[in-house]
Amino acid sequence: MINWSTLTSAQQVDALARPAMADSAKLRATVADILAEVLTRGDEAVLEFTRRFDSPELTSLKLSIEKRDELAARVTPEVQDAIQTAFANVKQFHEAQYPQDIRLTTTPGVVCEQRFTALEAVGLYIPGGSAPLPSTVMMLGVPAMVAGCERKVLCTPPNAGQEIAPEIAFAAKCCGIGEIYLCGGAQAIAAMAFGTDTITKVDKIFGPGNSFVTEAKQQVSQRADGAAIDMPAGPSEVLVLADESADADFVASDLLSQAEHGPDSQAILVTNSAELIEAVEAAVAKQLAQLSRNSIASKAMENARYILTSSVNEAIAVSNQYAPEHLIVQCDNSRGLLPLIKHAGSIFLGPWSPESAGDYASGTNHVLPTYGYARNYSSLGLLDFMRRYTIQELSEDGMRNLGPAIMQLADAEGLDAHRNAVGYRLDKLNKQND
Amino acid sequence: MINWSTLTSAQQVDALARPAMADSAKLRATVADILAEVLTRGDEAVLEFTRRFDSPELTSLKLSIEKRDELAARVTPEVQDAIQTAFANVKQFHEAQYPQDIRLTTTPGVVCEQRFTALEAVGLYIPGGSAPLPSTVMMLGVPAMVAGCERKVLCTPPNAGQEIAPEIAFAAKCCGIGEIYLCGGAQAIAAMAFGTDTITKVDKIFGPGNSFVTEAKQQVSQRADGAAIDMPAGPSEVLVLADESADADFVASDLLSQAEHGPDSQAILVTNSAELIEAVEAAVAKQLAQLSRNSIASKAMENARYILTSSVNEAIAVSNQYAPEHLIVQCDNSRGLLPLIKHAGSIFLGPWSPESAGDYASGTNHVLPTYGYARNYSSLGLLDFMRRYTIQELSEDGMRNLGPAIMQLADAEGLDAHRNAVGYRLDKLNKQND
Repeated sequence: MINWSTLTSAQQVDALARPAMADSAKLRATVADILAEVLTRGDEAVLEFTRRFDSPELTSLKLSIEKRDELAARVTPEVQDAIQTAFANVKQFHEAQYPQDIRLTTTPGVVCEQRFTALEAVGLYIPGGSAPLPSTVMMLGVPAMVAGCERKVLCTPPNAGQEIAPEIAFAAKCCGIGEIYLCGGAQAIAAMAFGTDTITKVDKIFGPGNSFVTEAKQQVSQRADGAAIDMPAGPSEVLVLADESADADFVASDLLSQAEHGPDSQAILVTNSAELIEAVEAAVAKQLAQLSRNSIASKAMENARYILTSSVNEAIAVSNQYAPEHLIVQCDNSRGLLPLIKHAGSIFLGPWSPESAGDYASGTNHVLPTYGYARNYSSLGLLDFMRRYTIQELSEDGMRNLGPAIMQLADAEGLDAHRNAVGYRLDKLNKQND
Repeated sequence: MINWSTLTSAQQVDALARPAMADSAKLRATVADILAEVLTRGDEAVLEFTRRFDSPELTSLKLSIEKRDELAARVTPEVQDAIQTAFANVKQFHEAQYPQDIRLTTTPGVVCEQRFTALEAVGLYIPGGSAPLPSTVMMLGVPAMVAGCERKVLCTPPNAGQEIAPEIAFAAKCCGIGEIYLCGGAQAIAAMAFGTDTITKVDKIFGPGNSFVTEAKQQVSQRADGAAIDMPAGPSEVLVLADESADADFVASDLLSQAEHGPDSQAILVTNSAELIEAVEAAVAKQLAQLSRNSIASKAMENARYILTSSVNEAIAVSNQYAPEHLIVQCDNSRGLLPLIKHAGSIFLGPWSPESAGDYASGTNHVLPTYGYARNYSSLGLLDFMRRYTIQELSEDGMRNLGPAIMQLADAEGLDAHRNAVGYRLDKLNKQND
């Protein structure tokens, strides 16, 4: 238990420190090599890496629609229903985010517009690993579908049987994703960013992944021949902000939900109640023992932090300083605290809103800024799958009205041609009037 | 004159190639050194670099409000009026972009929200160089003001007299920018990203600059202790899409407006009229001779391209392939062509809409995606100065309605604690009912 008000500022910074990110020169070089291989040898390199790491017998990167549907049909009706319930909520919430184009006359005869358009081709990365992640397929696939992206490309590592999890196939089908490729890791990111014969280049790449994937996304986002990416990524994290009214079992299960994601997950409880901390510690011990991912969650909980503050307001200040990816608020008046909360990726209000609700089915997106990026990056949403551009159209009157100011400013900046572009036009208008 | 339809695909790609970006190992290392110096020595390093590169006698990085206002008062009334005209249009257009928060019940008892909030602290970089750029101050300062950013930090290199251009001071005053620091280059970017004693760290850095500034922005955006940035940058560019109805003097002045920005500026005319190309070439020669920035514009025009297509539709296809920062459309029915145009940062429609209108005063933002990034990045707007986050709140009914689907999905993903977080809550609700 950390008693916040007894710490110096430096100790407070330490108490909220995140684990160092995998940023070794070795990782950077390994990923750079993989990118270079894919850039020069295309499909052949992607296939080689995929055979080496994921599926030794793989002969083709493409998963056919028929195969997708055959896999999807293996999902039990109960899970199909659950995926469709989640799909409907996520779709509704992202449809509500559809932006309005703008058209405005700023000066008589000067029309300015801002229009939104879907990105043409998006790459959706779905990690492999110990469990299939149909929820991530929805969190990326639904906004791509709602935005109206022409191409939705999904890459995910195949298993030894050259297949993907049926749940992933089913979720992909729900989202209308037809282009599915059997590859993962840095090689998949490279293929989507640069393009190969089989996998045509995309404009932007989305989705979570291991340190190779994260590093590859960073590297391709730095290259003009690469692709944009959704956001920088770090280990997942939750901060639970609670007072004495909170249920210790609920809080413990929320901390453990985060902890079971990975050994580097961060779980933090901040509360003004020492009794709650004791009760939560006991509940964590009890619940942890029963988890199938016990070893992962135990490892993560070694770094869990229980921070005691002198008031709820001080607890909020701690949360604002940390800027958590997930912020769970279980206080007597959770909604009333919202105006004080500054930085968080997604906020879960009240006792009945566990993180798993947002991870799966409430409708919000579970791709969120980690590692303090909630200060300056947005939670994933429909706008990330679209692009804004502007239009201006001046009429003859518009040119007459605004031309003199433009010439004045061009003069001030010493740009003759900018002034002339208006000058020639005003001359022509004056001649027309003669 | 390039006859598009006679080229192979590879030749077409070459014809639209952009100049290689300054991406030398030397530049990267130099910038990394500057960042490291600022990170370790703070103000002292920033002052040293600023004395070396910009203002040998400088003793303080801070420009006081009094000094800002004193400088601003030196601007002539004519230029003050012009800046205020532009300011009013830019402000109107960015106010119109203010987003709506969303609140939606996705399932009975499950409320999801998306809220927008201003970034807390933004850094606005204004280059120095041969001419002051009050227009860039407005393009960054107005959206920061409209968004409601608490801190707006402006960095710009001082002159030998330890001052900045009066026009910059005046524009900063219009935008309510009080924090002005006298530094430029990579050292200014480092100071804003990492913070120093004088310059408190910002969350996101905006604005154009030379290759050092661009490289420094890239590097700080890759660091968790750095800052987000507006967008990747390359040399500025214009593509004029015209048919035989276009006025050759107008087109020439628009190409030259781009060319005078810098020797690496790109100016491209794409048209189905060989006569127009000839007339524009003649007009360019005539106008170019009279420009004060003749040597810069001449250098850029050496790389200008005049592309002849067989039809307006083919010209649009060329433009879509190039994805220009600025697209000027001077055709018989310019607005009617909009549905065919796919990728452009900002579009200037018709004969009376020169690029200089948007550069200065129409209301649209002049910070736009260059170098083909118009495929996957947005033109700068109000949303870039804000952050989206989500909220969800389940009532007891919401938990009862959605809980079973969440448990089903957690099971499918093998995440026990996620399931338990719902299980404990449903148990408690069931007990309450007993």
